[in-house]
Amino acid sequence: MTDLLRNRPGTTQAMMAVFDDAATLAHALAFEAELARAQAANGVISSDAAEAIARVCRQSIISADELANGAALAGTLAIPLVNQLRGALDADAASALHKGATSQDVSDTVLMLQVAQAGDLLLNDLDRIGCALAMIAERYAGSVAVGRTLLQDARPVGFGLRIAHWYAGTVEAAGRLRFEISAGSKIQFGGAAGTRAGLQGKGAAIAAHMADALGLACGPPWHSRRGGVVAIGAAVGIVIGTLGKMARDISLLAQNRVGEAREPIVPGRGGSSAMAHKRNPTGCQIALSAAVRAPGLVAGLLTGMPAEEERGLGGWQAEGPTIAELFLLAAGSADAMATVAEGLEVDEGAIAANLAEAHIGDDIGESVAIVAAILNHERVH
Amino acid sequence: MTDLLRNRPGTTQAMMAVFDDAATLAHALAFEAELARAQAANGVISSDAAEAIARVCRQSIISADELANGAALAGTLAIPLVNQLRGALDADAASALHKGATSQDVSDTVLMLQVAQAGDLLLNDLDRIGCALAMIAERYAGSVAVGRTLLQDARPVGFGLRIAHWYAGTVEAAGRLRFEISAGSKIQFGGAAGTRAGLQGKGAAIAAHMADALGLACGPPWHSRRGGVVAIGAAVGIVIGTLGKMARDISLLAQNRVGEAREPIVPGRGGSSAMAHKRNPTGCQIALSAAVRAPGLVAGLLTGMPAEEERGLGGWQAEGPTIAELFLLAAGSADAMATVAEGLEVDEGAIAANLAEAHIGDDIGESVAIVAAILNHERVH
Amino acid sequence: MTDLLRNRPGTTQAMMAVFDDAATLAHALAFEAELARAQAANGVISSDAAEAIARVCRQSIISADELANGAALAGTLAIPLVNQLRGALDADAASALHKGATSQDVSDTVLMLQVAQAGDLLLNDLDRIGCALAMIAERYAGSVAVGRTLLQDARPVGFGLRIAHWYAGTVEAAGRLRFEISAGSKIQFGGAAGTRAGLQGKGAAIAAHMADALGLACGPPWHSRRGGVVAIGAAVGIVIGTLGKMARDISLLAQNRVGEAREPIVPGRGGSSAMAHKRNPTGCQIALSAAVRAPGLVAGLLTGMPAEEERGLGGWQAEGPTIAELFLLAAGSADAMATVAEGLEVDEGAIAANLAEAHIGDDIGESVAIVAAILNHERVH
Amino acid sequence: MTDLLRNRPGTTQAMMAVFDDAATLAHALAFEAELARAQAANGVISSDAAEAIARVCRQSIISADELANGAALAGTLAIPLVNQLRGALDADAASALHKGATSQDVSDTVLMLQVAQAGDLLLNDLDRIGCALAMIAERYAGSVAVGRTLLQDARPVGFGLRIAHWYAGTVEAAGRLRFEISAGSKIQFGGAAGTRAGLQGKGAAIAAHMADALGLACGPPWHSRRGGVVAIGAAVGIVIGTLGKMARDISLLAQNRVGEAREPIVPGRGGSSAMAHKRNPTGCQIALSAAVRAPGLVAGLLTGMPAEEERGLGGWQAEGPTIAELFLLAAGSADAMATVAEGLEVDEGAIAANLAEAHIGDDIGESVAIVAAILNHERVH
Repeated sequence: MTDLLRNRPGTTQAMMAVFDDAATLAHALAFEAELARAQAANGVISSDAAEAIARVCRQSIISADELANGAALAGTLAIPLVNQLRGALDADAASALHKGATSQDVSDTVLMLQVAQAGDLLLNDLDRIGCALAMIAERYAGSVAVGRTLLQDARPVGFGLRIAHWYAGTVEAAGRLRFEISAGSKIQFGGAAGTRAGLQGKGAAIAAHMADALGLACGPPWHSRRGGVVAIGAAVGIVIGTLGKMARDISLLAQNRVGEAREPIVPGRGGSSAMAHKRNPTGCQIALSAAVRAPGLVAGLLTGMPAEEERGLGGWQAEGPTIAELFLLAAGSADAMATVAEGLEVDEGAIAANLAEAHIGDDIGESVAIVAAILNHERVH
Repeated sequence: MTDLLRNRPGTTQAMMAVFDDAATLAHALAFEAELARAQAANGVISSDAAEAIARVCRQSIISADELANGAALAGTLAIPLVNQLRGALDADAASALHKGATSQDVSDTVLMLQVAQAGDLLLNDLDRIGCALAMIAERYAGSVAVGRTLLQDARPVGFGLRIAHWYAGTVEAAGRLRFEISAGSKIQFGGAAGTRAGLQGKGAAIAAHMADALGLACGPPWHSRRGGVVAIGAAVGIVIGTLGKMARDISLLAQNRVGEAREPIVPGRGGSSAMAHKRNPTGCQIALSAAVRAPGLVAGLLTGMPAEEERGLGGWQAEGPTIAELFLLAAGSADAMATVAEGLEVDEGAIAANLAEAHIGDDIGESVAIVAAILNHERVH
Repeated sequence: MTDLLRNRPGTTQAMMAVFDDAATLAHALAFEAELARAQAANGVISSDAAEAIARVCRQSIISADELANGAALAGTLAIPLVNQLRGALDADAASALHKGATSQDVSDTVLMLQVAQAGDLLLNDLDRIGCALAMIAERYAGSVAVGRTLLQDARPVGFGLRIAHWYAGTVEAAGRLRFEISAGSKIQFGGAAGTRAGLQGKGAAIAAHMADALGLACGPPWHSRRGGVVAIGAAVGIVIGTLGKMARDISLLAQNRVGEAREPIVPGRGGSSAMAHKRNPTGCQIALSAAVRAPGLVAGLLTGMPAEEERGLGGWQAEGPTIAELFLLAAGSADAMATVAEGLEVDEGAIAANLAEAHIGDDIGESVAIVAAILNHERVH
Repeated sequence: MTDLLRNRPGTTQAMMAVFDDAATLAHALAFEAELARAQAANGVISSDAAEAIARVCRQSIISADELANGAALAGTLAIPLVNQLRGALDADAASALHKGATSQDVSDTVLMLQVAQAGDLLLNDLDRIGCALAMIAERYAGSVAVGRTLLQDARPVGFGLRIAHWYAGTVEAAGRLRFEISAGSKIQFGGAAGTRAGLQGKGAAIAAHMADALGLACGPPWHSRRGGVVAIGAAVGIVIGTLGKMARDISLLAQNRVGEAREPIVPGRGGSSAMAHKRNPTGCQIALSAAVRAPGLVAGLLTGMPAEEERGLGGWQAEGPTIAELFLLAAGSADAMATVAEGLEVDEGAIAANLAEAHIGDDIGESVAIVAAILNHERVH
């Protein structure tokens, strides 16, 4: 049962791979394996048990399909996962498996491993966009163009000034995302009530060992405070909004009676099933559609924050799919707009003709200096 | 590439099947086949071409996987679909295929076919919930229990009165959903600019023929006004909120120190990966998690409404996945709460003990009469 | 302490008056007075007490300012209100005041009285818009114009067809709002735990009497099920989205290089503080700004639904300000767009020139018939 | 026309004063005065004109009421403001007033001045909360209590561990807010199209002078990129969600059958209009109600991001009221929860009795060490 027709448009295969069943399962198995190794290293379980656990986690004994049905029944992924793994272990290793951990430890850590990878992918495309935009902004900094406010011709601007704002927005949004991921993508390891009980006082050491092995930051459990996750989601939402702004502008500039800029031609993109002559701003469509969907997703994350005591009922369970959806949308948007930015067609003739028709003079004020200031000095987190 | 671990918990297999690739593709092919038949019946294309189109639509020549990648590139499902089908048709039939139609005609009609099925599934579970709740409400209408406001003991209520409100909420929400689906689930057939051009004046007749064949209502094109779709989504959102209220109450009643009601035991559900003794309100968790996610999804639908002219850029493209997500969440919630409602365990001893401890007397006022009024007279749309 | 600079732009004085302190206070006093009269009519309190209560409710002894501070402290309006009124009554009347009622009874009934008035105001402006649009749609049904999809020239449309969709959207949205208000604007009277206790079995009769006096529908208490309120809010949200769509289109049509339609000149509106030559689509700005804010407000209403037991902690308290905000924004939008619709300037020369430049022929298909079908047959709830 | 009954509950008078008409007007006048002074200092206008402008800005010639009506008509505050001021100036000063500025320059700068003040107020209350919680967390770090997950008794926790998470959440959220305000609260000065035209190349110098006088950071104009404003709003939303979590927990702990902690008694707070015996968690209600409303408001900010070119139509106009609303709700929540935190009543007897009844042992694992780690090491931005 696949949903590719619904989910594939609007995202990238690379980002889908970050959050698909294979990745989720692999991270969950890595959690259990590294937990066992960390516990063996700290004398909490035997080395033999740890090796047996690591071995069974390396084997492909789990069907994601069955596991998903089990998780739907149990209300959590870890229960059927641990049950299946235990069935393949001897009694000693079975009792050592998942020791001192709880379902949310697995889910949260898996999510953070995915967030770290997703962030890298996304930031890479944002860098592409930033580089491309910086070049265009600089190139057209002094090209006199119609500036438009409230969709009406206003005063002249340097054409590159508009682009410099797209650039600055992208750089700022990328910086915020990078910061929030680095601050929030920590291992989760607290056990049933978040106390790291039953671990002979070695809980913090085990967590540190696991974090190191999994490539995440370490810290106290954070199961019941979700600000970090929500902030990551909000930062992704701001990325999507920022790219949506660029897409809005380009779609307006590409209107037939404006024609100052347009998306590059991408084979297979931008056509119409009914009109062969059309050249649709399909990259912008992807970015704008993401920008329609993202705000409500961020709201969903905020809504779940007031969760009940040590582990809430509904709130954190809503986070995983929502964070995934935000990154999927952001990836589709960033990929589309990277292509657009790198190939943006600027029509200087149209720019000049529109300016002449607007009768607004040619004073672009300090446009060039502002572009330079933006390109040189904008804050990077 | 599957996403079952992310999407399966929180919904049902039946609802997933309504919106999965196989269903989407089947509906899209049915659209093209019935369009051809309707056009042949109205003399717009030849019968031979219509039969050839219908035949190729019956064959499994399309890979959803490839199609999804094509749709991601093209920005719309219909372009690669029509291209693939045309490749399997002779020139005459190829030019007859998709005649006078546009991508959005396909997408919107497919969505409405899915909405109609999804509505049936969901309303069926809501009926189950209503029936079960009516019985419990009646049975415990006069059972004196602690009424609680702002999470504090307040005054006595008939225990069934609380349940009668769950019932009335469910019936009202189901009625609204049924109405909005019946009002909004119309065929979409307008062509490139929504004028039904190129059809020799037979556009309305063709639309009526198709609507009849596909089992949808007919009407003028609605491509550029989306209130009907948004209203369906909002109605689903209210269903989810209503079930979330029931879930909130049951999860509170099931607290260890309250114990007045709890979910039935379902094998494999409600356990904990760390604590064998626990009996978690997992059905309520599913419903509450849906209630966290739904509001933002409804907001996303509303956000897309101010779309551009004959076909917007981003707004309607955001609707399909969002409507699907809302129904998927609602299905998971309704299925879980139907099981909870049908098997709800009420502990009259605990109810009495809590009442005694509260020292609030036993005057339940007109609880019994209100329950009767609710069960007999609540509006059904 | 006033907030007019923040709140006045974007709404109307008439709608502000519906929800301002004077109106809220008057409704709350009417509730207490009619409650007393209804109870006297049913023999639950003495006629003398009822008269004394009604008298004190008619007098202006209450300062909204003080009351607001009291409500902020108490967490509810009714507590300081009842306290102040009791201070002006003799012991008998004081104990008869607010008998069998609770704070939420007052708040919910006040809200529904305001909703009824707000609905009338808003529906009146929507009717104005519908009438104006029907005329323009009919007039320009056959005027060949460029149809645009994804912000690109597509195929010709009857210029009136686009407007007919605005019309149909408005009529549909108005119908839904009218229905939801009529279904949901009921009196609330349930007392402390919603059982109508302490009223000698006369609760239903008292509620019916009050409903009649206050001009609201009657029914069982609905304090703990909020679907009706949320549905009203969602219906207002859809109104705002529908008007936003019209505003989006007009702002695009009014672009300098398009010029097919524009807002009428309204003295004092549409200017720029920096550019005397500009004619901004300020009516559209108001409608579009409302459409940006409304989706999240509707989400807020949905978020509050899963409330706790007989009276929740946070959810329903969030409804009042949110419903008010939605109506305030809708009023601003409808008022602005009524002015725009009634005075819309259509430039047939520009329409023709743009069409000629687009080289897309002049086949508007069944535009005229679709306009007629929409004007004649669109559903009205 | 006041709306205190709607707006005063749920916020504080101090925060209302930050965003009320008097403050807005004062900031707008300060903008015009400092603009004039900065331009005089840079030789762009005469010193006499600047002095005349500053003088008229100091006088109370403006009625907020009239100005609000003018702004509603004009679609922007600055137009009627500048008109009124010009009426009180001689021709030379009148033409020097608002020179090179545009409406959005005023609105954005006013908003940022308010954000800076609002941030100080809010952060002050968050500091109070943090201090109070740190003390309680430390004091009860080792007090064995029932830990609860999914609203069921789970495993023992140190009672202070739960509180340490409230603390850490508050500190993190405050740090993020402080950072986003410091990064985003810049002066806006770009003029009609954001180019600083008409200022003899002194635009940057004028902006720097104004920023210094007004106490804001300086930078290039940011009129068309709104990520900074949105990020401030999202940070406030996370503050509200964090406080909502604390409020959720306390309201659950204060349930009659739990009784482990409760809000302090505040005269006039927590009563019921119908039940004298009740002690409602009214502080928590305020915080939870804010947490219901905030997510949609943040979504509204994100929704407005894809704005059109140099100045959008609807998006940024939606920001001011939304940012104000978020700070107003946050202030109400923080003020209420500061009172709750500073006076929190912890009942060690109830904690012990509940633990004994739960039969879950008394192993609180590394609770004490985790509390210490949280109190000592949590990140502060």
